[in-house]
Amino acid sequence: MGKILVIHGPNLNMLGMREPEVYGRMTLTEINESLMDAAKKAGVELRTFQSNHEGELVDAIQEALGTYDAIIINPGAYTHTSVALRDAIAAVAIPTVEVHLSNIYKREEFRHHSYVSEVAAGQICGFGVDSYFLGLRAALKLIGDME
Amino acid sequence: MGKILVIHGPNLNMLGMREPEVYGRMTLTEINESLMDAAKKAGVELRTFQSNHEGELVDAIQEALGTYDAIIINPGAYTHTSVALRDAIAAVAIPTVEVHLSNIYKREEFRHHSYVSEVAAGQICGFGVDSYFLGLRAALKLIGDME
Amino acid sequence: MGKILVIHGPNLNMLGMREPEVYGRMTLTEINESLMDAAKKAGVELRTFQSNHEGELVDAIQEALGTYDAIIINPGAYTHTSVALRDAIAAVAIPTVEVHLSNIYKREEFRHHSYVSEVAAGQICGFGVDSYFLGLRAALKLIGDME
Amino acid sequence: MGKILVIHGPNLNMLGMREPEVYGRMTLTEINESLMDAAKKAGVELRTFQSNHEGELVDAIQEALGTYDAIIINPGAYTHTSVALRDAIAAVAIPTVEVHLSNIYKREEFRHHSYVSEVAAGQICGFGVDSYFLGLRAALKLIGDME
Amino acid sequence: MGKILVIHGPNLNMLGMREPEVYGRMTLTEINESLMDAAKKAGVELRTFQSNHEGELVDAIQEALGTYDAIIINPGAYTHTSVALRDAIAAVAIPTVEVHLSNIYKREEFRHHSYVSEVAAGQICGFGVDSYFLGLRAALKLIGDME
Amino acid sequence: MGKILVIHGPNLNMLGMREPEVYGRMTLTEINESLMDAAKKAGVELRTFQSNHEGELVDAIQEALGTYDAIIINPGAYTHTSVALRDAIAAVAIPTVEVHLSNIYKREEFRHHSYVSEVAAGQICGFGVDSYFLGLRAALKLIGDME
Amino acid sequence: MGKILVIHGPNLNMLGMREPEVYGRMTLTEINESLMDAAKKAGVELRTFQSNHEGELVDAIQEALGTYDAIIINPGAYTHTSVALRDAIAAVAIPTVEVHLSNIYKREEFRHHSYVSEVAAGQICGFGVDSYFLGLRAALKLIGDME
Amino acid sequence: MGKILVIHGPNLNMLGMREPEVYGRMTLTEINESLMDAAKKAGVELRTFQSNHEGELVDAIQEALGTYDAIIINPGAYTHTSVALRDAIAAVAIPTVEVHLSNIYKREEFRHHSYVSEVAAGQICGFGVDSYFLGLRAALKLIGDME
Amino acid sequence: MGKILVIHGPNLNMLGMREPEVYGRMTLTEINESLMDAAKKAGVELRTFQSNHEGELVDAIQEALGTYDAIIINPGAYTHTSVALRDAIAAVAIPTVEVHLSNIYKREEFRHHSYVSEVAAGQICGFGVDSYFLGLRAALKLIGDME
Amino acid sequence: MGKILVIHGPNLNMLGMREPEVYGRMTLTEINESLMDAAKKAGVELRTFQSNHEGELVDAIQEALGTYDAIIINPGAYTHTSVALRDAIAAVAIPTVEVHLSNIYKREEFRHHSYVSEVAAGQICGFGVDSYFLGLRAALKLIGDME
Amino acid sequence: MGKILVIHGPNLNMLGMREPEVYGRMTLTEINESLMDAAKKAGVELRTFQSNHEGELVDAIQEALGTYDAIIINPGAYTHTSVALRDAIAAVAIPTVEVHLSNIYKREEFRHHSYVSEVAAGQICGFGVDSYFLGLRAALKLIGDME
Amino acid sequence: MGKILVIHGPNLNMLGMREPEVYGRMTLTEINESLMDAAKKAGVELRTFQSNHEGELVDAIQEALGTYDAIIINPGAYTHTSVALRDAIAAVAIPTVEVHLSNIYKREEFRHHSYVSEVAAGQICGFGVDSYFLGLRAALKLIGDME
Repeated sequence: MGKILVIHGPNLNMLGMREPEVYGRMTLTEINESLMDAAKKAGVELRTFQSNHEGELVDAIQEALGTYDAIIINPGAYTHTSVALRDAIAAVAIPTVEVHLSNIYKREEFRHHSYVSEVAAGQICGFGVDSYFLGLRAALKLIGDME
Repeated sequence: MGKILVIHGPNLNMLGMREPEVYGRMTLTEINESLMDAAKKAGVELRTFQSNHEGELVDAIQEALGTYDAIIINPGAYTHTSVALRDAIAAVAIPTVEVHLSNIYKREEFRHHSYVSEVAAGQICGFGVDSYFLGLRAALKLIGDME
Repeated sequence: MGKILVIHGPNLNMLGMREPEVYGRMTLTEINESLMDAAKKAGVELRTFQSNHEGELVDAIQEALGTYDAIIINPGAYTHTSVALRDAIAAVAIPTVEVHLSNIYKREEFRHHSYVSEVAAGQICGFGVDSYFLGLRAALKLIGDME
Repeated sequence: MGKILVIHGPNLNMLGMREPEVYGRMTLTEINESLMDAAKKAGVELRTFQSNHEGELVDAIQEALGTYDAIIINPGAYTHTSVALRDAIAAVAIPTVEVHLSNIYKREEFRHHSYVSEVAAGQICGFGVDSYFLGLRAALKLIGDME
Repeated sequence: MGKILVIHGPNLNMLGMREPEVYGRMTLTEINESLMDAAKKAGVELRTFQSNHEGELVDAIQEALGTYDAIIINPGAYTHTSVALRDAIAAVAIPTVEVHLSNIYKREEFRHHSYVSEVAAGQICGFGVDSYFLGLRAALKLIGDME
Repeated sequence: MGKILVIHGPNLNMLGMREPEVYGRMTLTEINESLMDAAKKAGVELRTFQSNHEGELVDAIQEALGTYDAIIINPGAYTHTSVALRDAIAAVAIPTVEVHLSNIYKREEFRHHSYVSEVAAGQICGFGVDSYFLGLRAALKLIGDME
Repeated sequence: MGKILVIHGPNLNMLGMREPEVYGRMTLTEINESLMDAAKKAGVELRTFQSNHEGELVDAIQEALGTYDAIIINPGAYTHTSVALRDAIAAVAIPTVEVHLSNIYKREEFRHHSYVSEVAAGQICGFGVDSYFLGLRAALKLIGDME
Repeated sequence: MGKILVIHGPNLNMLGMREPEVYGRMTLTEINESLMDAAKKAGVELRTFQSNHEGELVDAIQEALGTYDAIIINPGAYTHTSVALRDAIAAVAIPTVEVHLSNIYKREEFRHHSYVSEVAAGQICGFGVDSYFLGLRAALKLIGDME
Repeated sequence: MGKILVIHGPNLNMLGMREPEVYGRMTLTEINESLMDAAKKAGVELRTFQSNHEGELVDAIQEALGTYDAIIINPGAYTHTSVALRDAIAAVAIPTVEVHLSNIYKREEFRHHSYVSEVAAGQICGFGVDSYFLGLRAALKLIGDME
Repeated sequence: MGKILVIHGPNLNMLGMREPEVYGRMTLTEINESLMDAAKKAGVELRTFQSNHEGELVDAIQEALGTYDAIIINPGAYTHTSVALRDAIAAVAIPTVEVHLSNIYKREEFRHHSYVSEVAAGQICGFGVDSYFLGLRAALKLIGDME
Repeated sequence: MGKILVIHGPNLNMLGMREPEVYGRMTLTEINESLMDAAKKAGVELRTFQSNHEGELVDAIQEALGTYDAIIINPGAYTHTSVALRDAIAAVAIPTVEVHLSNIYKREEFRHHSYVSEVAAGQICGFGVDSYFLGLRAALKLIGDME
Repeated sequence: MGKILVIHGPNLNMLGMREPEVYGRMTLTEINESLMDAAKKAGVELRTFQSNHEGELVDAIQEALGTYDAIIINPGAYTHTSVALRDAIAAVAIPTVEVHLSNIYKREEFRHHSYVSEVAAGQICGFGVDSYFLGLRAALKLIGDME
């Protein structure tokens, strides 16, 4: 049975509390529960992890090695500043789907560049919470490609 | 019943013939048929259009006004050079999903910028032919949001 | 009797339907009729042409050679991306007035550069539909200078 | 009865004496007289002001507040360097038409950017002395829009 | 009674030990005590926090939500590199005063840009330890504005 | 007894009349009177000066030499364009506090750079009229440091 | 027997009519006839195609697949703006020789970059009409290399 | 008898008072007197003018037309920011020698560009007060070339 | 007896597991043991520390103050993004040798800049694991210079 | 009888020894002999020169003045760095053909700019050793044009 | 027995005479003798070469082919400007160690880029004369790797 | 008795033969003789040196150490590309006057930057052959300052 790790970057623990007109009203707990339900239906195991600490996100990616078949990551603010995350993803070489709630290309110039997209299989952004569910579908497909 | 228009930009008519290790072995006709099947199952109507001509793509977008509820577009090379496509999408204001077969952020520098992403609802790239099917799911969701 | 060609670029056929708070409520047909009236009063012949196709706009400029005394062009999105339009205008060497409905210098950075302005006699922008009528007056003056 | 202020920036007092092949043979006094004639015919009052001093131009714009209905300004060299002029125009919020004798987009790179155009209603350039008369027509129209 | 949180970024725990000619001789403990005294006099509660960890600073800002009325932050080196801090401040939407001991505009080019200033109410820099006390005064005023 | 000179740059004479939602409702006269009151309480003499002319601002700074112990300057638009102001401040070497009503780092890109900050002791911005009073407190402290 | 396709981009149909001091006096028809003569002598078949439409040029390149052994292309203005042409050449993978009448490196800055040169075998520019004949010789050699 | 105008820009009236280790101990009055002596010996008339006002410098250059045979200008801070000065020099077309006390290429990046040098005959910088005397010698030579 | 601290940045704990063709087959534990052996032979004490957390690396550097005579640091991904590390090294002012396994100048553009090199004594890169042993030798020499 | 000088820049003496998959297996001596044969057939005299020294290449170009009718130059690495070569070619004003073995536009960014192309008649690149023979044909044509 | 060539670039012959506080007091002759001693102890042969001429340095690298097993090069000023040196090193494909006395990343911006580092095995900088001895140790290791 | 070395860079040996409308009709020999005459009159010894070789120019500067009191250098094309020349001048620390015949700031963009001016005492450009004589006068003054 496939295993998928969902990683949420900084400030995503505030979802639902923070600018709901931009990020929606669902909390991170609700999103995680929905993702686990969807994963169960698809016959895969799914775990979630959130941290505001770049180092803990790097740790989590490293620890996924040998356990998880795919990673879905919303790197939040670290998307634009973290070479360490990028290197961790490259090091574990687990197929990785990058997701963003908002369309980062409609926002400030500094959000247009992602260090992660250069090592991820692909990127999905702009569909709000649905970005995660599209990401799950993409991850399932990537795992299928591996088998 | 919802109606979705799928637009393929320049050179996508060569899919299957062109660099299969990059773009896969499915032809555009096969992709279009699969998309129509998937749409039918989801209870929506789906039409496809391909052109190598920027002007014909602009015409197609304009003509979608009043007929289609969502657009899925893979603008191909015009992603990076066409302000006209961007303006057409902004003008018709139909929810639009931008898709790319390859992860454009892993390719040449000039492919990292998209004029279309600034007016699209969101972007999906890097999942090969699956990008279209993820795009269809995203479009269905966007139509649902509208109703 | 002088002859003037008015060329409208991509998406201008949607005038009146598209973002009226930005572009006004007059349709392109209405603008064209008003321009022809104004030209008649000024004693010149005026023809109009619109296309979403860069190539057709280039064709139209080339065909103006030997027939028209001045061109009024609103190149729309091609203002910022078309070297071909620029070269066509330079090639026919017909006095050309560049017009824009909106003040392109108040909009996105990529709209601040015009390939056409480097070969046009002058540029008029920001006065809505009146930009065309100011352009007509400027063209009449340029024709006068020629005689 | 509407009132229009025409402001000429640095070195425009040398018109007619300076590079006539570029700027024409009319002196500033002659231009001002023609503009006043044209204004009278249009039923508006028109005053003109020239200075080589950035501060005096700022003063003049500020003093226009409550007196003038529109400003026509040829900011000359200050077009490219004066944030103070820009802020003054924004502060008084009088509809402003920016004019230039030459097509600034055909000249040195540093003349392609205008601080003023970002706060003006629109811009007219490249038609020699006729730029002023086109500017007057544009200003009359803007005043009309206001009423 | 108002509550203010003072956040010190990386390496500020070394104040007094580090380049005293640049940063002065007061230790962070002494500064914190003085700030608490000054706050007490002004009738507000003030707490301080220092960390070298970007993630802990983000945590601290998030936890301030619902408890503190204003934040005074000297983000140290993270001023220039942390989008995560910026997003945390934007997310909690607590009025924030950015302070720096040195005049960052007199230092290396990379210190001239602050991610934090784009979401802070205002910025105070260059007055050594006094920057904190000016920051306290500014924060008191901001709280007053809120009531 | 210490003496402080407050210098207001271009367009600040329009305070209260101009974009009150941005700059507040207090007029410059009211601000000046409040500053003089505050200075009197602090036991220092304070004079104010406003001009729209870069040259007069330079003159005022030069004339401060030998008379004033500190300068508080809001250089307005000249912040971003005047090397002459910067050189004048460097020449007289009087401790100088740069203040801005708005947070210049939240505004247009061209307002993010200040020629003055590179020669001022420090900078305070974004606190509206309170920026001046924070500036006064900073100046008093700087004078104290001198004695 | 080898087959070579010669493609002429926008405005090249005006050769002989347009700036003869730059582009020479030969018309495109005359050039095409000379090229066909030269090809016949070399024992290869040669066809020519000209269009002002980017899409038609892309179509022509795609249709060359399986029929032609080499392409000689003067992309004209599309040299500098067309990713679509570039992708078409890469897709068909027919050996391609890029030619220009003028030395594009002596002209405007924007003409110094060619999207086509990055996928062409080589580039020849600056020799007027002779660039085509050098291109033919180069193409013959490339075909020889293939056999 | 030839006539030469020496123009000193902003802050040069502070020479001798300001950073003597950089600019020397001679005052502007002393420099002017020495220049007049040197001119007298060379058989030409020399007048000097200093202002901190960009507009007055422009006025002075305009007024030189028809009276002076050469201009020696040290534009000070306006070297780097004034298009108006540049245009004035171009307008009067009097041979102009640009001088600087310091070697502007050893100083801050923003001092490396001069708007004036693009219209001056030549530039002399870095020789302290001697730059003026070298400038006088150069001007005498230029006048000689004219006769 | 001299004391040296060796600091390994993010992802270096994966050495031996990660891209062995790039980084070699030795694990970090093996490297650390070899370094301690080499240090013992040279008569100095050596301790090692690895973390994926920027803040922990900053903490470690600060704690080295007063204990260690030299630091050898391979900052990994933080080389390119961490001003905090740089400031910590500058603050403790312990002679620091920067080492990299790979030649960072042969890799992606963003790896060409190091914030650390601007405060380190020197840099050694490109010699694989040997970079650490060269770094040890350099550190020993630096300590010798200190005594 | 026409005379042509062929100049080879640095490292071209290693042809055949160096990266044969890129530069081919022919040595420089073999190329030179083939060129001389071809020249003889065309009825012109041809001499060749190679040096790794920028100065010797400049000397050779200068000495060509009055002796040679055309230059064929492969400036090698100096293409991208030598203003001296460029100035020498401009000074002698002998028609010059620039050739490169590889397509420099497919290589590192710094090889995309040529100082020589701005003074050469034209450029030929990417055809391996055949670039020289195309260059010879182009040079013969240029000489013909001269007569 | 291994053979190593040490190449010193321009101005390094002045070591000991030139800015000793930056470059130390040892002359180049003394450094060369020490290097030869160290090489002898390590059982390899070492030769040294210095030139101020870019071309002679290129010659020396080319001549090393077939004779030397490793090169240690301090390219001096040519580090930043010579593509020819870079190409020579790439051509001979002898393992090369780049060394610099000073830490080039602490110096002027233009010294931060090295053309040589992109083809060298690795780089060592900032350790004064010790950079050469570290370079020797690195070269010995590289030779060992080869065997 | 003072000694001055005049150094002429590449292509200056062609003076008089090359673009006389730009560089004048005097040959280098004539200029050198005039300079020696002028030096003799001023009571100093003057020697001249010209080379097209960067390395020889560096050698000449190094050899001037201990013999010459001042250098006058026209570095020609090496002005813009040679760090080696710059370092040589810095190394010998002989007062150096940089001269140019033409006003380099009126020419191509790449001629606006001089590596030499950052280490020269000052720069004189734009006065044709007179630049050398002004340079001699400046050098005499610099020598005087030294005594």
